Amino acid sequence: MAARASTAPPRGMRDVLPPEVELRDAATQRILAVYRSFGFRRVETPALESLRLLAGSEGGENEKLIFKVLKRGDDLQQALKGGGDLADLGLRYDLTVPLGRYYAENHAHLPDPLKAIQVGPVWRAERPQRGRYRQFTQCDIDTLGLASAVVEVEQILATCEALTRLGLADLTVRINDRRILGLIGHHCGFTDGEQAGFFISFDKLDKLGTEGVLEELRGSGLPGAAIERFERLLPTLQKGETSLPALRDLLGEGEAFESLDWIVRTANAELPAGARVRSDPTLVRGMGYYTGTIFEIASPAHRSSIAGGGRYDRMVGKLLGRDVPACGFSIGFERLITILTEQGHALTGGSETTATGRRIALLVDAGGDLTAALAAARALRGEGQLVSLELRRKNVGKQLADLATHGFWGYATVEGAAPAVVKPLTAARGGR
Amino acid sequence: MAARASTAPPRGMRDVLPPEVELRDAATQRILAVYRSFGFRRVETPALESLRLLAGSEGGENEKLIFKVLKRGDDLQQALKGGGDLADLGLRYDLTVPLGRYYAENHAHLPDPLKAIQVGPVWRAERPQRGRYRQFTQCDIDTLGLASAVVEVEQILATCEALTRLGLADLTVRINDRRILGLIGHHCGFTDGEQAGFFISFDKLDKLGTEGVLEELRGSGLPGAAIERFERLLPTLQKGETSLPALRDLLGEGEAFESLDWIVRTANAELPAGARVRSDPTLVRGMGYYTGTIFEIASPAHRSSIAGGGRYDRMVGKLLGRDVPACGFSIGFERLITILTEQGHALTGGSETTATGRRIALLVDAGGDLTAALAAARALRGEGQLVSLELRRKNVGKQLADLATHGFWGYATVEGAAPAVVKPLTAARGGR
Repeated sequence: MAARASTAPPRGMRDVLPPEVELRDAATQRILAVYRSFGFRRVETPALESLRLLAGSEGGENEKLIFKVLKRGDDLQQALKGGGDLADLGLRYDLTVPLGRYYAENHAHLPDPLKAIQVGPVWRAERPQRGRYRQFTQCDIDTLGLASAVVEVEQILATCEALTRLGLADLTVRINDRRILGLIGHHCGFTDGEQAGFFISFDKLDKLGTEGVLEELRGSGLPGAAIERFERLLPTLQKGETSLPALRDLLGEGEAFESLDWIVRTANAELPAGARVRSDPTLVRGMGYYTGTIFEIASPAHRSSIAGGGRYDRMVGKLLGRDVPACGFSIGFERLITILTEQGHALTGGSETTATGRRIALLVDAGGDLTAALAAARALRGEGQLVSLELRRKNVGKQLADLATHGFWGYATVEGAAPAVVKPLTAARGGR
Repeated sequence: MAARASTAPPRGMRDVLPPEVELRDAATQRILAVYRSFGFRRVETPALESLRLLAGSEGGENEKLIFKVLKRGDDLQQALKGGGDLADLGLRYDLTVPLGRYYAENHAHLPDPLKAIQVGPVWRAERPQRGRYRQFTQCDIDTLGLASAVVEVEQILATCEALTRLGLADLTVRINDRRILGLIGHHCGFTDGEQAGFFISFDKLDKLGTEGVLEELRGSGLPGAAIERFERLLPTLQKGETSLPALRDLLGEGEAFESLDWIVRTANAELPAGARVRSDPTLVRGMGYYTGTIFEIASPAHRSSIAGGGRYDRMVGKLLGRDVPACGFSIGFERLITILTEQGHALTGGSETTATGRRIALLVDAGGDLTAALAAARALRGEGQLVSLELRRKNVGKQLADLATHGFWGYATVEGAAPAVVKPLTAARGGR
């Protein structure tokens, strides 16, 4: 092995075998069909973006994880001599920042509002760990150009519909508004400059629990009086949606509460029986660019959230020079595939049949007359079967067992000199 | 503009607008359906590979065009201090080299032979020019583990079928064998070490013409006597398939000629009326890794080739330690999309209807009761329509014109307080 290059994929990245690719494709197609039926359309941006764009995008921790691309040619030589930046491009770490740039660049040619679907890989140089990869797929919808909460309702309905169609049951959409979080922060006494640090700890309530969050806040250098007020407010916040009327009175503001209330009522009236929206004043979410509604979907059967998103009305403005209302929902695609695999999904129709037909091997003799085999294969394809010509081996029993292992439903043999005889189809496992 | 970051995509890369994404998706799905029906299955590898793999892969000129990824953390610091390599990873420049690694790594879990489909982006830091991009899509099939020419026949039939289903007519598959090219080189008097240089110039016959190629050879430092013998042989080679019997006698070898002859006869007997295979002893192709059959598909209506490939029986061996027969066919996806766009394809069913239904806008009043609109949208989706909720604007005439521009077939308005009234569907352009 020493002399040869390693055949493993790069650290933290992975090769995907055919059965998993087929599951991923089937899941993607089903999600796309639902999102398309809600009027969303696919857009595509390059995998690489300028580092200037990526590094100024309020992506929080993710900006530190950018895979940077070395400059080329003279630019690289100059950077090496002059001590300038060695890299000019970076692999995107999410699909939202590139979409903001895409909209700013192309808005004159795009529908208004733009209802975009994006499905594609993103890259983060995180420390590899179980279930977390350095290249992974995101699946996002975003609506740009419309400030109305109709957007939030449509995105919640579409995403719950897509997840339901994939067989996920018992979905809860937790929803909050960054403006309410801001009011809570101010009410406690955190200044504008202290809010970001306050949110980072507050966001860990699920992970650390009440005491853990308070401890982290106390060690953070934030003012003790504000932390104490927050501690007194926490029991109210943790009552979830029932705390909203009290919270609204306490914070003395209406707009964000009204919006939240309208979204919850309107979406709940239309959601299917297995899904619901609930206000949760403890929902924070990590990204710095959110400005209004934020949401997350979870199912009690699966610990972590399956999808999340929110409104980010100021991201595009930084590129375009005028603010463009924007709101998006992102499905955690890798998490979804793990769940579908665990629950023994029926998306790819089992291993031996596919959406389009049965997987069939035509066993032919090496060097024999192929004419009859090719015609038989063509006829079976015409019936919707997936037909593979395979050279017949000496140990046919072993060959048939291998075919069954790799998802072939059955086989036929093509024997003899021209004209060869095609034997009837037989199930590879010996039965139906 | 000065203060804001540029919103253009990186140099030589592009944003894709929804109508083109839909064309690309429809073409991809149609190609995949045909390849699947021939028993091929999708596999996926990461976009990044180790530079050690990419740089030792006989990828010819493409290796110079690799986008390299800067090392990270301590590794980068050490490289900067110690003067070592600054980069450890690179973006793949084709799908063949990663597939070789994938097979070497995963063969124990894969069907034997593996019949792989790959569709995905590749990156090359070429000087940007019209129609050539630094990120572009490749669409490949490869069969690994089978030395029989059945593989070539199956790949030719499947690829011609896929292109025919996309509406491309009058397809010619030119086919040759690297072993014959080697014999030609030796016959002329080029040594093993000189063959690669000879092939590079020979490959330019289409582009430079006879005189151009001879001139380049004379300026290349290759032996004059060999170039003269090649000049005398060229008229025979340029007669195409009719020259094969004479060439076979001249070169005194049988195996490659027999294989070529069998592939041509067998494939032609099965190809549809608009497609044919022709031997062409002047077909060379650029990559260094080919070992046997090579092929290219062109249509007289389009100057450059649409697909190409060949047998590369020694690539996997360098990684695995034992040779694995391999053969692949790659569709030039960007070229294909250009052709489909030029010939006014009907793949996406025109702009206003899609494979799944008509694009319909439900115009609702801001802040109004959404219940009726959501129920109407759900009912229309149930009929297969693509339904988008849109806020009604003051200038509805302008709004309808915009909707028509962006591919909406029609609209309905939802008016009044609860219960709101849904008006019947109307075509956005005023007629059916």
